[in-house]
Parts: sequence; structure tokens; C-alpha cells
Amino acid sequence: MKIQVINMTFQTPRGTKDIMPEEMIRYDYVISVIKDVFEKYGFDPLDTPAFEDWALLSAKQGGGEAVKDEIYYFKDKSNRELGLRFDLTVPLGRLVANNPDLPKPFKRYQIGKAWRYDNPGAMRWREFTQADIDIVGSDSLEAEAECLKAVCEIFLALGFSDFSVRVNSRKIADNFIRSIGLTDAASVFRSIDKLEKIGESGVKKELAEKGIPEKKADQIIEFVRIRDLEKAKKIAGPEGIDDLEKIIDMSGEFRRYLIADMSLIRGLDYYTGVVFEISLGAGVSVGGGGRYDNLTEVCGGKKTPAVGISIGISRLVSVMEERKMLSKAKTKCLVFVISVSSEAKKGVAGLVQKLRSIGIPADFDIMSRTLSKQLQYVNSRGIPFAIVVGEKELKSGSAKIRDMKTGKEEEFEFRNPKKIARLVKPE
Amino acid sequence: MKIQVINMTFQTPRGTKDIMPEEMIRYDYVISVIKDVFEKYGFDPLDTPAFEDWALLSAKQGGGEAVKDEIYYFKDKSNRELGLRFDLTVPLGRLVANNPDLPKPFKRYQIGKAWRYDNPGAMRWREFTQADIDIVGSDSLEAEAECLKAVCEIFLALGFSDFSVRVNSRKIADNFIRSIGLTDAASVFRSIDKLEKIGESGVKKELAEKGIPEKKADQIIEFVRIRDLEKAKKIAGPEGIDDLEKIIDMSGEFRRYLIADMSLIRGLDYYTGVVFEISLGAGVSVGGGGRYDNLTEVCGGKKTPAVGISIGISRLVSVMEERKMLSKAKTKCLVFVISVSSEAKKGVAGLVQKLRSIGIPADFDIMSRTLSKQLQYVNSRGIPFAIVVGEKELKSGSAKIRDMKTGKEEEFEFRNPKKIARLVKPE
Repeated sequence: MKIQVINMTFQTPRGTKDIMPEEMIRYDYVISVIKDVFEKYGFDPLDTPAFEDWALLSAKQGGGEAVKDEIYYFKDKSNRELGLRFDLTVPLGRLVANNPDLPKPFKRYQIGKAWRYDNPGAMRWREFTQADIDIVGSDSLEAEAECLKAVCEIFLALGFSDFSVRVNSRKIADNFIRSIGLTDAASVFRSIDKLEKIGESGVKKELAEKGIPEKKADQIIEFVRIRDLEKAKKIAGPEGIDDLEKIIDMSGEFRRYLIADMSLIRGLDYYTGVVFEISLGAGVSVGGGGRYDNLTEVCGGKKTPAVGISIGISRLVSVMEERKMLSKAKTKCLVFVISVSSEAKKGVAGLVQKLRSIGIPADFDIMSRTLSKQLQYVNSRGIPFAIVVGEKELKSGSAKIRDMKTGKEEEFEFRNPKKIARLVKPE
Repeated sequence: MKIQVINMTFQTPRGTKDIMPEEMIRYDYVISVIKDVFEKYGFDPLDTPAFEDWALLSAKQGGGEAVKDEIYYFKDKSNRELGLRFDLTVPLGRLVANNPDLPKPFKRYQIGKAWRYDNPGAMRWREFTQADIDIVGSDSLEAEAECLKAVCEIFLALGFSDFSVRVNSRKIADNFIRSIGLTDAASVFRSIDKLEKIGESGVKKELAEKGIPEKKADQIIEFVRIRDLEKAKKIAGPEGIDDLEKIIDMSGEFRRYLIADMSLIRGLDYYTGVVFEISLGAGVSVGGGGRYDNLTEVCGGKKTPAVGISIGISRLVSVMEERKMLSKAKTKCLVFVISVSSEAKKGVAGLVQKLRSIGIPADFDIMSRTLSKQLQYVNSRGIPFAIVVGEKELKSGSAKIRDMKTGKEEEFEFRNPKKIARLVKPE
């Protein structure tokens, strides 16, 4: 067949990226820690399609308003209107509506990609991976506490000491907004949500554009800066604030990572009660969530209370890379067996199979390279151990394994490769 | 906020499906077995975006011709033409073209979703999960053998005894087609590829429509039915057939699962040499692959030899479910701690946290349900063990753990939950 060369180079589409082995090894590690904690907390795995009905994704109370313009939209060949999911929560709402008989509470986790046509930037991609837990079918605040405990345990297990989860309730904000004689809490919320991004003056300007008098704007900003729950109660009443106190109490040993914050709103429209946001250090958000008691109904099902929280894996891995919290391993391969000569080759292939059979990731030369070129390859891939095998080693049935970093060598016998296992996989 | 109920129910888009926890647990198991073998064989993980440039996906020699009509096409908001990836090989070609300095051979695996707008049917979905390995940068037949050995080891590890991998080379078919005075091997291949689907008469009809005389059509069909490599050599010459013999020889203990089959072609245009197809029992295909030495060039890079094989996870899990080869576990949760009274609740939450802290997936009631309703929930979720805790148990510091299947009970002390670990996680 003739090759048609397309004089073109292709890049990953804007806002997306390849995850090369070195980074993927870290993703896998972070995901395995998260999965492990999710499962310990009684959540079961689930998966849903990458795309959903456009009408579902763009529904006003189903994420809708806030992200509609960010959804990748397309039609299939039968002209069905579809969109790539922008989160894992709306698909869950649809799934629960489709399966009314699921035992409740339904506790599921889902780890997968989502897509938003957002402005790409530092730690902001159009394709990203999320890890979500949700508890569907319980309106108890213990559901909130379960989600919070699991998330705190994950961040501790990953080695963070400077994380916090800010908590608030939309009920508090609703009550306060009513108490100062305003009605459209949702609209005010959307401006308040930008407090960190555009600052106090930016928010005031937006509120003014929405027709809110300056004095009320000042009152709103003053209120959301309150950190003292008793003080907030005096202004907005106990509803909502009591909820936060109970949740913090139920979170036991993890309560010290929780911070009540009246300015926290979260952008999506489907939240109805408590909302969360996970922050690292000086305020990098790596996830959040909240209670959304109406979403299943919006998706065409019976009204079903639900609460959940989502961890942004892509951003989390980025932060951990910046902080050098993750392994520098460039490969999962542990041992490379170098052939000194083409005669040694067959014996090498046999030894490699033996290592693999006892669970050691191992590789060998298939390029007929010289010894030095093979060593070069071992170094460029970052394989931590090498074994050099020639006629002599095959004859004696023993060889040396070399730690590529320290240069230390140890002798082992081919018939006892378990010694290698202990060496390359310590503990 | 007022709820806007959209009097509509939404289903998963046609040809896609939700993977509920029971099935997802099986997916996770199958994927973990596959990952483990891939890594033992020296392959490293990688990920690429779900969508790519439309021009890349639809390029004539890059999958192109055969699947162009099956690609989900869309434009982003800047009018870039994109498509959901239909396999993991074309993205790899693009990635290698983008990263010319990767150490070669570049051995990567990728497990992810791909999408084709195909006619959905039994074990045929528009969204499916694939697990691929590829070796890029080596034209040695040992690369083929490495892929084949890894695949055989996976099917053995999953418990199959009736799998086989058919192997052929496009070189053989090319030489044969030339030997009978024809030229457009690709076109003949595409008809031969349907031999199992539309039968001999269907293929003959198609070949006739392509202007191939009946006598030659008979010769072609006779040739592709040959199983004896010596006989095939006499007709088509040794080229290609020698390759198969070498690969089979290099596959060592796994050679008994390999079958040379001259009728095997594989639909995609990018293959240039050896091709594979993995079959179970009476011929269900669960994957395949081959050598594609031109793809990187097609993707705008330097010509780079490559070979790979892909396992269709969605179909594999379906077959294993039909054959009852997979665990019937409905949940990852192992223990549910039942509270007899609301007073017992706090102690229960503490015990559950203790179980979780030693790695036991555990759960408890957050619905204030009665004992019998809690038991019902344990049964409906399929949680294998339950512990009933009331005042008495909290006082004595010991309780009984019940195996929900056998009804057998064992006593344990709260301060020694390790006994539970041994009980619920045998071995």
C-alpha cells in the first residue's frame, strides 16, 4: 500500500494533554490511594458514559446555567443532541432516576474524565480527571460527615498537612439574603463566588450592575467574612448554622480540618444545602461538593436527597508534583537484563520470563544493541536495576544485579530469583 | 430556588451503558489482572485525550477509510474540527510524532475508552473500554512475540483455557494477491475480512462486484483456508511466512495458543505486516492488533516501526459474565455494623472507623432504621458480614460477627478487630 503522508503535525487539542508514563505512574498512585479510602468508607465503583443527552446536561437546575457554554456539544449521525459530561454528578442524577429500586442509601464512587470548554491556564484543563463520592437517598447530615471524613482521610494518606475543607450551607446564605430584603439569592451567590478571583471591588461592581444598593452590598460582604458561628446565628438565624455545627461534631477526629466559611457558595445551580470546598495551603481549590436534593427530580426521577464531593485529580497531581510529594520513578519496569552477545540472548529471554513469572517487571534488548547502548537505554528509561548476562553467567548459573543509582552489585543464582524480588521490591 | 422539573426521563445515549457497581467490580478485577501483566512485561502506563484533531482521525492511512463514518465528530467553540478517538493506536502515533526523543523501544500500555458510531448489538457498543500494549521503535519480530506472550499470559491468568491468537502477515496476502495477477490487495482484504460475517458466497459476490473474476476469487478463498505453512510457502513464497514461524518460535511456552491463519486480515488500513486476532472458544473476537510501521509518519513524524495489540475489555467482561467466570460480589463493602438503638449509634460509628482504619471496608446506618430494616439493607446490598451492636455489646466490649451467607457467628473483642480482618479477608 502506498503511504499518504499528510504534511502536517498534530498536537493534542487545546486545553488537553498527554499524560506521559512518568506522570501516569503518579496518577495511578494517587488514584489507588483514593480508591482504597473510598472503598473503606463503603462506596462502590460505578461508571457512566462520557456523553449524555444535551437536554440533560444543559437543564437549568442540572448544572445548566453556570456551565452551559462550557459543554462540548455534538450530534450523533441520527441527529441526537449530545454533550460530553462536565461533571460526574449530573450523570449520577440521571442514573438514579433510571434505577429507582437501587438500595438506599446508594453510595457510589466514580473516577473518570470530564470536559469543559473553559479558558485553559495554570492547572486548568479542558479535559480533567475527577474522583467523586456521593450518597444518594439520605437526608441525614451523617451523609455529609461520611463524605468529609473520607476526603480528610485521603488528604492525610497522600501526605498533606496543610489542607482544609471549608463548609457552608446555602440555607444560611438564603436566610441572610432574605433578612436584608433581597430575593434572588442565586444571582448574589454567583457574584460572591468570585470574591477571591475578582476581589471585593469587583464583586461590588457586579452587585451594583445587578441593581443591589451599595449599602446592601456592604452588608453582604461583611456577612460572608464572618468566621464566628454564634455571631452569624444572630444575623441569619440558626437554620443551616446548626447543620454545620452538627456535621463538624460528627466528623470526629477529622473536625480539625473543617472550617465554616459563609463566603463559600460553589458555582453550580444544583446545590440545595451544605456545600464544601477542599483547599490546599494558601487556597488552591482541589475539589468540592455539597448537597443537591433536587437533582434526581430534575433528571426525571423521584425527588431523592443526595450529597457528594469531588476531588480534582488532575490539579491534585499537579500540586503534588510541584511540591515534590510524588515518586520520581520514570518507569514501572524494575530490572533490565542486558545480553553481552547474541549467543547469550536465548538465556536472557528465559531469565526475563522467570523474573516476570515471580511478579518482577522485567525487560530485555530486542534491538540487537551493544552492551553500552543497552546500558544507555536502561539509563534513559530510568530502570533502577540491571543484570549483565554473557556466556560466563549462563554457564555458572549466577550473575550480578546492579543498582543503577548506587552502583552496588549483588550476586544471585538463576535458580533462586526470589533474592532479586527482595532486592528490587523492598519491604 | 424553585425547581424546574423537566417532564422528561433521560436514558444513556444509544449504544452506551452505565456500568453498575456489581459489573464495575468485575471490570476493576479484569483491568487489574491486565495491568499487572502489562507491567511485568515492561510496559508503562500512558494516557491521551478522549478527542483528537478530526484531520488526524480521518486521515486515509490512519484508520481512516474503514472507520471514518463511525467517528463521533464535533467542533469546539473556536470551530476546531475534532473527533472522539476510535482506538488508542492513532493517538499513540500522534504522541510518538510529537515526542521524537522518547527512548526506543517505547513500550507503553493504555487502558481507556474509545467510541465508534457502529450498529449496537450483542457485545457491540458505541462506547467501549480497551487495553492496549504497543512497542514503538523496533522492527524486530521479538516485539511481536513480546506482545503475544503478554496477551497469552493475561488470558491464562483470567482463567481461560480455550483462547487462541490467530496470526498472519499482510506480506503473505500481498505476495499472494500479486502472484495471481491482481494489484489492489487492500480492497480484496476488506472483503476477505468479512468471511465469517457474510460467508463464502457473500465474499464472492463482493469480489465480483469489485471486478475480480470468479476463478481468481476461488483461488483467493482456497488460499486463505490453508493452515499448513509449508503449503502456503509454495504458493506465496517464504516472505511473511518465515516471519510467522519465527514469532511462533520466540513465543516459547505460549506457542501452543498461536494459530497461523491466512484468512486473517483485520480491517484497519494502518497495518503493514503481521496481524493478530484473539479469539475465545468458537470464535468470539476479544481483541487484535498488528504491525503498523507507517503510522507515525502518517501522523506527521519520522517513520518509526511499531507493533501492538488491543484487548476489548467490554466484550471480555461480557463473555466472562456469561461464562460465570467472575465473582458475584455486589459490593466492595465487607462489614455492616447494625445499631440496635439510637444510644448505640455513637459506639457503632467508632467501631466502623476502627474497622476502616485497619483496611476493612465497613459501613453503618445513617437512616435511623430499625434492626430489621438495617438487615434488609445489608441483604439488598449483598454485604457479606454484619455485626449487631447494642448497649450490651458496648458495655462488654465484645460482639458477634455474622456471615450473612452461612449464618455462622463468631465472637470478637472491640480492642482486637484484627480477628475480623482475618475472618472477612481470608488468606
